Amino acid sequence: MPRGYRDLVTPDGPGARFPTRRQAARLADGREIIYFDREPAPSRDAADRRELTARAEAAEVRFDRLLGEPVAIAAHRQDRTHLPPTDQCPLCPTRPGRPTEVPAEDYQVVVLENRFPTFTERAPAGIGRCEVVCFSSDHEDSFVSLTPSRARLVVDVWADRTRELARLPGVRWVFPFENRGAEIGVTLAHPHGQIYAYPYLPPVPARMLEQVRRHRRATGGDLFAEVLDGERAGPRVVAAGEHWTAFVPEAARWPVEVHLYPHRRVPDIPSLTDAERDGFVAVYLDVLARLDALHHDPLPYVAAWQQAPVRAGRAAWHLHLRVLSIRRAPGKLKHLAGSELGAGAFLGDLRPEDVAARLRGLAGRRG
Amino acid sequence: MPRGYRDLVTPDGPGARFPTRRQAARLADGREIIYFDREPAPSRDAADRRELTARAEAAEVRFDRLLGEPVAIAAHRQDRTHLPPTDQCPLCPTRPGRPTEVPAEDYQVVVLENRFPTFTERAPAGIGRCEVVCFSSDHEDSFVSLTPSRARLVVDVWADRTRELARLPGVRWVFPFENRGAEIGVTLAHPHGQIYAYPYLPPVPARMLEQVRRHRRATGGDLFAEVLDGERAGPRVVAAGEHWTAFVPEAARWPVEVHLYPHRRVPDIPSLTDAERDGFVAVYLDVLARLDALHHDPLPYVAAWQQAPVRAGRAAWHLHLRVLSIRRAPGKLKHLAGSELGAGAFLGDLRPEDVAARLRGLAGRRG
Repeated sequence: MPRGYRDLVTPDGPGARFPTRRQAARLADGREIIYFDREPAPSRDAADRRELTARAEAAEVRFDRLLGEPVAIAAHRQDRTHLPPTDQCPLCPTRPGRPTEVPAEDYQVVVLENRFPTFTERAPAGIGRCEVVCFSSDHEDSFVSLTPSRARLVVDVWADRTRELARLPGVRWVFPFENRGAEIGVTLAHPHGQIYAYPYLPPVPARMLEQVRRHRRATGGDLFAEVLDGERAGPRVVAAGEHWTAFVPEAARWPVEVHLYPHRRVPDIPSLTDAERDGFVAVYLDVLARLDALHHDPLPYVAAWQQAPVRAGRAAWHLHLRVLSIRRAPGKLKHLAGSELGAGAFLGDLRPEDVAARLRGLAGRRG
Repeated sequence: MPRGYRDLVTPDGPGARFPTRRQAARLADGREIIYFDREPAPSRDAADRRELTARAEAAEVRFDRLLGEPVAIAAHRQDRTHLPPTDQCPLCPTRPGRPTEVPAEDYQVVVLENRFPTFTERAPAGIGRCEVVCFSSDHEDSFVSLTPSRARLVVDVWADRTRELARLPGVRWVFPFENRGAEIGVTLAHPHGQIYAYPYLPPVPARMLEQVRRHRRATGGDLFAEVLDGERAGPRVVAAGEHWTAFVPEAARWPVEVHLYPHRRVPDIPSLTDAERDGFVAVYLDVLARLDALHHDPLPYVAAWQQAPVRAGRAAWHLHLRVLSIRRAPGKLKHLAGSELGAGAFLGDLRPEDVAARLRGLAGRRG
């Protein structure tokens, strides 16, 4: 049995509805790789036989005093692998004569430390961790084409990683996200997401926490609940189930923007019950199918989990996922320019109600 | 003499060092056009003979309660003119048989209301104004290739427009900016900038004002002065003159980012003296030449003036210009993705000190 073997703990307990093995190993340069397999799972004990130099660089975190925001300076990332041909994909399983980042013939979901991390535990500065989450061993897959059971495994993996990464010294926020599409700068086409464990609370969750607290002080009210209740009753719902609602937010910044909220307030992914995880998968796969149907083309998007900060505001937080796209019409992207980049003032190109109505009218996906 | 004629008031008074005429007229659909000419100036009284329908749409301003920021929803802008061929440029002077937005055979600097405005005075919502500032009648020009005297006229025009627009009811911030390059979504190649008069204080100046006030309360100190003094004494200066210093900021977010500060604290462009305006022109043209030399190619950039809010914090403010580029290497752009768009956490790709040293080593321009 390889080092690091244990059962993955899901809400219904180890070995319950979805018995899952979690097997950890080290790559040639010391980075961790963790295989997550639904049973029956093979043993993941093949060694990484590549010659890799250990990397110790990480970002330097600086503070922009005028805007009150940290900025990570990660100069070493300039050299990262950029859109390699399919037969050189580093996230595909290893084939005879072609070793990759994953020293196994196949896998279900695998997590590995990023080779060009912005944050890492093994550096004097930029403490934290950056992980890659491969959703499938099939290079041609995409989140939207995953089976519900595989998508559910990904949710369980996000939960596992959130719990583990939140325990690292100095980590303030755990951020699972997916960038999809070369249009937003994805450098590897293989279906994967990433998880950043930041040594600081980034501006988006920091501002939300501030707004929620300010609203509580000023009115006694619960801002997250007010927003969610308002959207559930309003004209911008895209899809909904028993446990989740997906809507275009009232003040959407992007040509396509959909937020997914669980109906029950939870601070983070590990807190979701079994039924809530299944419910998320159904609504999310449905929404993603609608997004691809919008322009009859895979939509480039960013999907960004908003979890509670590790050490602040957990009771006030309401977990949600934000999905946004820069595509404003077939072949046309929204470029951020003077107003957005120079003033921070977003100019939305489409009425959120119209976008929601279009998405509702498209073919979704029913698991 | 056309309607709206008057001398442009520059710091040394009307008709002093740079006698300048300011002649205003209306385009066929009622929008204002204002010609600014150094004397001797021809009379700008040619009528716009096009048939144009008056437009009354403007953005709807919504408020993102969770992030605490206004967002302008400007659906009508989807139809705006997109990269027309050079012989159909709407900002070139009118030629026989080819009327443009500028019903004159030639011009020096001309300002006109945007045909697809996000904000306008003539709408029930989205009150404010959006103007286009043409820097030159020559389609092939660029700010960096302007003569110092023409660039100085542009500064005087920004001052005039800032003063006028700040007087409009409901305007909270006046924002002169330039987007350059198709890579950031510029839809018209003619050398021009824009001015937005917002009915709200956008996030970037709002946050700066908050940080400056917070710092004053916490330490009694002057944040703008501390930042500027630190940068002037530090390793990131790119160019400097008697009245201005240009530097790469310590926590730069962009592959190329240069801030230009006047040494004397002033709230806005109208407050700059004659010598400070000339000094800006010399340093800015020098910096722009270095930016184009960086990759031996015209650099796509956003240049964004940070002026004091119209009705708040004027005494605490320090005018500056921020120039940023998304080009991180020849042929490569910085894409904003999960960390920036989903978390607001910028990952800088280059060390600011290295960028400053490279820019210092390049050929600039001495007026």
